[in-house]
Amino acid sequence: METWPDITMWHVRVRAARAYAYRVPPSRELANDVIKIGIIGAGRIAHVHARSVLHHPNTELAAVMEPSLSSATAFTQAYGGRPTESIDDLLDEVDAVIVCSPTAYHPEHIVAAARRGRPVLCEKPVAADLGHVDALEAELAGLDATVMIGFNRRFDPSFARLHHLVEAGVIGDVEQVTIISRDPAPPPMDYIPTSGGIFKDMTIHDFDMARHFLGDIVSVVAIGQNLDPALEQTGDFDGAIVTLVNSEGRTATITNSRHCAAGYDQRLEVFGSNGTLNADNVRPTTVRVSTADSTDAQDPYLDFFLSRYEDAYRRELDEFLLALAEGRTPDPTIEDGRRALEIAEAADRSARTGTIISL
Amino acid sequence: METWPDITMWHVRVRAARAYAYRVPPSRELANDVIKIGIIGAGRIAHVHARSVLHHPNTELAAVMEPSLSSATAFTQAYGGRPTESIDDLLDEVDAVIVCSPTAYHPEHIVAAARRGRPVLCEKPVAADLGHVDALEAELAGLDATVMIGFNRRFDPSFARLHHLVEAGVIGDVEQVTIISRDPAPPPMDYIPTSGGIFKDMTIHDFDMARHFLGDIVSVVAIGQNLDPALEQTGDFDGAIVTLVNSEGRTATITNSRHCAAGYDQRLEVFGSNGTLNADNVRPTTVRVSTADSTDAQDPYLDFFLSRYEDAYRRELDEFLLALAEGRTPDPTIEDGRRALEIAEAADRSARTGTIISL
Amino acid sequence: METWPDITMWHVRVRAARAYAYRVPPSRELANDVIKIGIIGAGRIAHVHARSVLHHPNTELAAVMEPSLSSATAFTQAYGGRPTESIDDLLDEVDAVIVCSPTAYHPEHIVAAARRGRPVLCEKPVAADLGHVDALEAELAGLDATVMIGFNRRFDPSFARLHHLVEAGVIGDVEQVTIISRDPAPPPMDYIPTSGGIFKDMTIHDFDMARHFLGDIVSVVAIGQNLDPALEQTGDFDGAIVTLVNSEGRTATITNSRHCAAGYDQRLEVFGSNGTLNADNVRPTTVRVSTADSTDAQDPYLDFFLSRYEDAYRRELDEFLLALAEGRTPDPTIEDGRRALEIAEAADRSARTGTIISL
Amino acid sequence: METWPDITMWHVRVRAARAYAYRVPPSRELANDVIKIGIIGAGRIAHVHARSVLHHPNTELAAVMEPSLSSATAFTQAYGGRPTESIDDLLDEVDAVIVCSPTAYHPEHIVAAARRGRPVLCEKPVAADLGHVDALEAELAGLDATVMIGFNRRFDPSFARLHHLVEAGVIGDVEQVTIISRDPAPPPMDYIPTSGGIFKDMTIHDFDMARHFLGDIVSVVAIGQNLDPALEQTGDFDGAIVTLVNSEGRTATITNSRHCAAGYDQRLEVFGSNGTLNADNVRPTTVRVSTADSTDAQDPYLDFFLSRYEDAYRRELDEFLLALAEGRTPDPTIEDGRRALEIAEAADRSARTGTIISL
Repeated sequence: METWPDITMWHVRVRAARAYAYRVPPSRELANDVIKIGIIGAGRIAHVHARSVLHHPNTELAAVMEPSLSSATAFTQAYGGRPTESIDDLLDEVDAVIVCSPTAYHPEHIVAAARRGRPVLCEKPVAADLGHVDALEAELAGLDATVMIGFNRRFDPSFARLHHLVEAGVIGDVEQVTIISRDPAPPPMDYIPTSGGIFKDMTIHDFDMARHFLGDIVSVVAIGQNLDPALEQTGDFDGAIVTLVNSEGRTATITNSRHCAAGYDQRLEVFGSNGTLNADNVRPTTVRVSTADSTDAQDPYLDFFLSRYEDAYRRELDEFLLALAEGRTPDPTIEDGRRALEIAEAADRSARTGTIISL
Repeated sequence: METWPDITMWHVRVRAARAYAYRVPPSRELANDVIKIGIIGAGRIAHVHARSVLHHPNTELAAVMEPSLSSATAFTQAYGGRPTESIDDLLDEVDAVIVCSPTAYHPEHIVAAARRGRPVLCEKPVAADLGHVDALEAELAGLDATVMIGFNRRFDPSFARLHHLVEAGVIGDVEQVTIISRDPAPPPMDYIPTSGGIFKDMTIHDFDMARHFLGDIVSVVAIGQNLDPALEQTGDFDGAIVTLVNSEGRTATITNSRHCAAGYDQRLEVFGSNGTLNADNVRPTTVRVSTADSTDAQDPYLDFFLSRYEDAYRRELDEFLLALAEGRTPDPTIEDGRRALEIAEAADRSARTGTIISL
Repeated sequence: METWPDITMWHVRVRAARAYAYRVPPSRELANDVIKIGIIGAGRIAHVHARSVLHHPNTELAAVMEPSLSSATAFTQAYGGRPTESIDDLLDEVDAVIVCSPTAYHPEHIVAAARRGRPVLCEKPVAADLGHVDALEAELAGLDATVMIGFNRRFDPSFARLHHLVEAGVIGDVEQVTIISRDPAPPPMDYIPTSGGIFKDMTIHDFDMARHFLGDIVSVVAIGQNLDPALEQTGDFDGAIVTLVNSEGRTATITNSRHCAAGYDQRLEVFGSNGTLNADNVRPTTVRVSTADSTDAQDPYLDFFLSRYEDAYRRELDEFLLALAEGRTPDPTIEDGRRALEIAEAADRSARTGTIISL
Repeated sequence: METWPDITMWHVRVRAARAYAYRVPPSRELANDVIKIGIIGAGRIAHVHARSVLHHPNTELAAVMEPSLSSATAFTQAYGGRPTESIDDLLDEVDAVIVCSPTAYHPEHIVAAARRGRPVLCEKPVAADLGHVDALEAELAGLDATVMIGFNRRFDPSFARLHHLVEAGVIGDVEQVTIISRDPAPPPMDYIPTSGGIFKDMTIHDFDMARHFLGDIVSVVAIGQNLDPALEQTGDFDGAIVTLVNSEGRTATITNSRHCAAGYDQRLEVFGSNGTLNADNVRPTTVRVSTADSTDAQDPYLDFFLSRYEDAYRRELDEFLLALAEGRTPDPTIEDGRRALEIAEAADRSARTGTIISL
């Protein structure tokens, strides 16, 4: 029996033991409390969060609300918790809420939770447009609400480490951020009209990431592409190039496409006065193949956000809970959600009018 | 709410949902049965297996046996299950057993489980020496025992994919296998005398990997190194170079060290008649740092087998359970354990006598 | 003596033997003729071309013209040839001309050579502005002049191979070109006012490269950066982000900086409907360093265009001579020079006015 | 005209300018003298050296000797110099000699040059066997001969830089050297019987490289492979695994094959007490291809030693000339040649007898 390392570090409660599944483990320990989570919505992203809740050492999935009780029930059969059609029922039973409903319902669900004093982790975008964010903020005024917006990429282990190295001064002042973000394949055509458009649906993650490194943005210029005739008919773009500038003249360049043959292409480069940091794509294995035709050929990238950002979603939940435990306001805030949305609306306007938009 | 992909794949029971934690998911679904697992031993490797059991969708940690009840109790407080000092008690309550006791006890525990018809997943090495394996096999004769030996590296996602590509004929016939396997730091000096020596303790994994690609080995030559004076005093080696040859003249070369500044160095290369396959070290992130001093500097490797082979241990358990569910004999078998041990003993003899050993 | 390969391939004239210095050798053999080259100018880029002439198997440096005879003489002492202050003298003695004079003199020198029927390889940019290109083209009308513009990057072995793979259809239709091009350090401040500005001086290479993949450009938007206060005082930019769009909506994004800690950062990525091609930075060796701090740290990039594009300049000269030998018009043409300049002027206007410019 | 860098560094004589072709330039300048070189032999390796002589700023190919005057003449037509059948004629006209004759003639040609006081750069191996080296050394005694042996790999830019980093202490003490060296394809079968066998013909380079890092070797064990039936009939091996140990127990492991689908596979890794250094294969470009099938697939390696070690041969000549200019004994010496040959003979004995050989 191999026993040499000090194994006392492993003598921890079952919950902390399960936390080991986080490849970059949380630096601080949560208290022993189990936090009862309610999930609003039972769609794809609700499944992602349900898995994070299942894996987190300090959470229990207590309730799931969906307008269709049968959908909620199917969901709870898979992940546990009580199904309900009523948001009030759900709020009765939980300590905190993850909002996974359609974007149009986000404000309503955030406010309902806030009125009951339940902290909220809400999926992006915070609302369908800036007008709705204004209305939401008016309703939240005086409620002392805790709302975190689910920009999961901030929590990706590679992007988070890159950000940490920037903060630590490894490359000096940030000058140019380069983000390449391509989906493996376009969504079904009937999704597109409900998506809010590429900038609010897809690029919004990149806008948040740009703000994460540059702070507030003062200028936006976007070029939309229509290389896929089917997608063009929806009135949306299938690719985009966006350049953002902050008040000091530092820039972020975002390249998006709704498709990418090699997989889910998610890269980040930050160029600074003293060096450059890169975060590459992630592959399922380290295997390289060399033959007479080519050498060191690697696996395609992890195929989509469910696998690529699995760790990020877990760490996002972790940060939400840690902030609650420590009485901090969790980042990113509703204000971060508003700013990303503001950029998305400006980018859409820029792409449609052929102008550079000042914010 | 993003809904376009067919999310029915995610509408699965909680157990299958948890299976998603396997980065390279099992190709076949287990039946719904929950298998009660007993762990014998409560040392470091028992913790590793307990975490796999916790994460596996079809297992429950039912009991843990240790001679010291307080150790067993501390362990079950962390991971669940009933603590016991009695192997009979443990066998009463479980469907299958994972043997994590000291090597000297492996045969006794395997036989006890086999007599009660409990399938066994036993840590490597199967026994302290070939004599004990002989005795073990004699005792097992007629018992229809199911015993899998825990050579976890076969189940590492990268090594497993590399093996799959070899089997698929991507590089033609295997000619030369190159294994580099270095620990990040030597164990405590007082562990060494109980370890069985570097070849049985450390290189045995590499011997199994060599056999995994070459089949049975007919010739062994080993060079032992003594570069660390403290380690030399124990009579053991702190580094080794071993060359194995199979009956067709195909070779495996193993390079071991008890230390490595850059982390846990675990690489595999298979050179074949039509190409070469490599599996590189694994790093926690994809971040690369470029400054005036150097470019594309990456993170150190994952630090030890607990993180590097976490997925491998989970997939090992998965294969054990799948084989049980399908009525197959799980690989690697007790015979694989014997052969690796035979090579380890030959390597030790070769290194101590300066001769090439024929098997 | 090792003799097995058919060494007859090596039994070639001394000139062809020297051609081996081209790491990616020309596919076609030149005839035996020795072409007498005249270089106009004796500055830094003249040295680069003189070395290419020295190494080329079919060229001889016959004459060098500079207004200062002592400069011309110093130059010819280093590389051979006859020094002269007179362009007519030079044209008397040579078969072809490389124009390395200051940009303001390019049209005059091109015309002088063309009137004498001497083919010209002219450094970029072809002229100081579009007005001068118009005047130049008017003067050349009816002269049957052969003029190649020295966009050396088209001839870089990596970029050329990447372009070849695009033409071969390996990645389907080009959709998004990403060019990152950063100098290791800014030029002396007194050079800046004479440079024509970052877009004509530095980005013009990238504009040509974008056109090489996208054809003609219909829209330009540029963001200029002023992060270096000293450089800002000159009225020029020290960084730039430019997005170009062609008539089909395909894009190129260019990121420039006048400095880069890690060296001369020269990368190209072409994203297509069926795949992606990358050309990375070049390093002097393949050595990687792994220690407890980081792993696989590599050398800084080759330090500047003199080393990075040494092969490209040689291959550029090779294409010039091959085109002459075969009676073809060498690429890139004066029209390519005009188009790159047109984009540069549009980019400058875009950056200074905050508008998207249509061409 | 770009003029900002201090271009005076480029105002050098033509010879020094040509030296720029060395990608890792010599650190010290040679004097202006032109050294007249004679090449003995006109086979494949003679062509390699002739190209180095052509490119070197301080050399001139003065004469070439071959028993067949027509071969010598064909050779000098390609590279210049006077052809001759007589070694005395050649020695009359040259300052230094490069011996590229068949191995059996090396001692005779070295002695002839030494008697006339001509420094010699002799191809490896120094002689056909140790007996001939003994005889050679006896003949050279008292002659004050300067003889450098052409172990070109010491001069490869990557291997040389790796060695420099080891000497600089970057990785602490060397513990394990790993050399992988595979030819792209076997030589013609009729060459094999004249080759001296794989250990003297091919592995000898690796033996010298092992000695370069480990100093003198005290123990050798070699496994020969016979996977190619045609090659087996010659009595030679087509693959080999050799382990060398020095007096301190530090090791080198060499893996050879006479074929490799992916190209000329030439890698070196040195593992030390504080880190690891790697030198990878070299490719003609940096292009990477990503499609739905695989990502970042790279070019095959440079195809053979003529391209892979082109720079190494040039730098080898450079060191020979620098040593002469500085009155130093150039490395590697005839003694290095003897030691590599001694290991080669021991390896052959080891592989044929199945024993570990002590030196």
